[in-house]
Amino acid sequence: MTSLVVKSCCLFFLILFGSQHYSVFATKTPLDQEKPCKRFILYYHDILFGGNDVANATSAATTNATGLGNTSFGMLVVFNDPMTRDQHLLSPPVAQAQGFYFYDMETTYNAWFAYILVFNSSDHKGTLNIMGVDMMMEKTRDLSVVGGTGDFFMARGITTLQTMTTEGTKYFRLKMDIKLYECY
Amino acid sequence: MTSLVVKSCCLFFLILFGSQHYSVFATKTPLDQEKPCKRFILYYHDILFGGNDVANATSAATTNATGLGNTSFGMLVVFNDPMTRDQHLLSPPVAQAQGFYFYDMETTYNAWFAYILVFNSSDHKGTLNIMGVDMMMEKTRDLSVVGGTGDFFMARGITTLQTMTTEGTKYFRLKMDIKLYECY
Amino acid sequence: MTSLVVKSCCLFFLILFGSQHYSVFATKTPLDQEKPCKRFILYYHDILFGGNDVANATSAATTNATGLGNTSFGMLVVFNDPMTRDQHLLSPPVAQAQGFYFYDMETTYNAWFAYILVFNSSDHKGTLNIMGVDMMMEKTRDLSVVGGTGDFFMARGITTLQTMTTEGTKYFRLKMDIKLYECY
Repeated sequence: MTSLVVKSCCLFFLILFGSQHYSVFATKTPLDQEKPCKRFILYYHDILFGGNDVANATSAATTNATGLGNTSFGMLVVFNDPMTRDQHLLSPPVAQAQGFYFYDMETTYNAWFAYILVFNSSDHKGTLNIMGVDMMMEKTRDLSVVGGTGDFFMARGITTLQTMTTEGTKYFRLKMDIKLYECY
Repeated sequence: MTSLVVKSCCLFFLILFGSQHYSVFATKTPLDQEKPCKRFILYYHDILFGGNDVANATSAATTNATGLGNTSFGMLVVFNDPMTRDQHLLSPPVAQAQGFYFYDMETTYNAWFAYILVFNSSDHKGTLNIMGVDMMMEKTRDLSVVGGTGDFFMARGITTLQTMTTEGTKYFRLKMDIKLYECY
Repeated sequence: MTSLVVKSCCLFFLILFGSQHYSVFATKTPLDQEKPCKRFILYYHDILFGGNDVANATSAATTNATGLGNTSFGMLVVFNDPMTRDQHLLSPPVAQAQGFYFYDMETTYNAWFAYILVFNSSDHKGTLNIMGVDMMMEKTRDLSVVGGTGDFFMARGITTLQTMTTEGTKYFRLKMDIKLYECY
């Protein structure tokens, strides 16, 4: 009978330990790169203002290129771009990407991005804060999700960019694969 | 007697488990939105440079609006603004807010912010790094605290903005409710 | 014999508890300011474009100073600067610092920085995202590492800047002591 009590006690703590162990590691599991706690893919559309296309344009250059090289070094563009679930520019936007990019390489087109994804729908309300470099010569490139608010309270993660199409400097479309590793 | 040992052992681990359980959850508790680990409310005052008011001005536009809409899209303002504990512009500042904002919406005034709160007093030394969108049509809006130094080493959190007053584009005052959820 | 089982059981849980306790606290240890989980020192070189030195220049002003004071308030500089392991400008770069700074104080030179360190060598691949204020009147000043990608997946930390030399506004060199406290 004593032996049974001992076994029960052992079992009790094994279960306790098991569940606790799980909760301890649960806070670390999301940091496996293959296992984000939240993930979604959106498409970003940027139509640069040309002077007489106010109705269509979603971004505008607020400084000129500096003359350091021939790839727009120093040109700063402010944007408020629609994000869609599929690749179609005219699909209903599920978020807006508000932010800026500037070109910062002398020898090739390379852009530095900081932007906030603003969600305001029945699905999601809140923001995600993203910054990083869009090295266009790479097939994919990772930017950092450095914060979030609302449904994305205190979030952190990675956003992987991929260029889908470009039409000169007039229009480009990026695939954004947003992976959060800290969700609360 | 053996039974007593078993019970003691059980009790011992129950206590251990209890205290440990507590410590595990202690690391998660600060992420309850209602329970920041640090919180303070400050007021931000911005006086835009008009060309001949160097003594009073705290910010200056470094690019012009782009012409995309009529709400200053693309106008970039650099600021070094006093932060006070109460709403009075002339109260002694407890921190400086250094950073920039730019307008980024075609149809209404909406601003994108990135700034560092610099504390250098006997109360606090250090910085807090904040970025987000000031959607002025909303009563309150949340920005992310993405990092900190000094007394705010490695901090993260949320800053809730509320407009207290605006005098055209010349002066505006924001209430900043700063809530940290990661404190070290 | 029963007593032996009890002792074994006790010992078993003591070991379990010990190892678990360790793992719980292991997630907090890296946040001791004296014990970063990764640390390296690099030197940043900035050569401002003067109009006819395209081959040497690594940065360019994309806006002019605003006239608020005499210390370049509002002047915005985009850079793509080499980072070296020692102080020599011509040493092989181990990373590029891509980003911008602007001057933001009326009475002295003081700069606001946001930049990404881009590593692309056999030693390191990935990025680190940094933002903060370079208060040049201070001997050292701390900026925040707010995110990372690749080898620096999800990193956070502090970068301590120290000015090594300045040659007017033409060239300056900063020591960057990069300390990560969250490594995955």
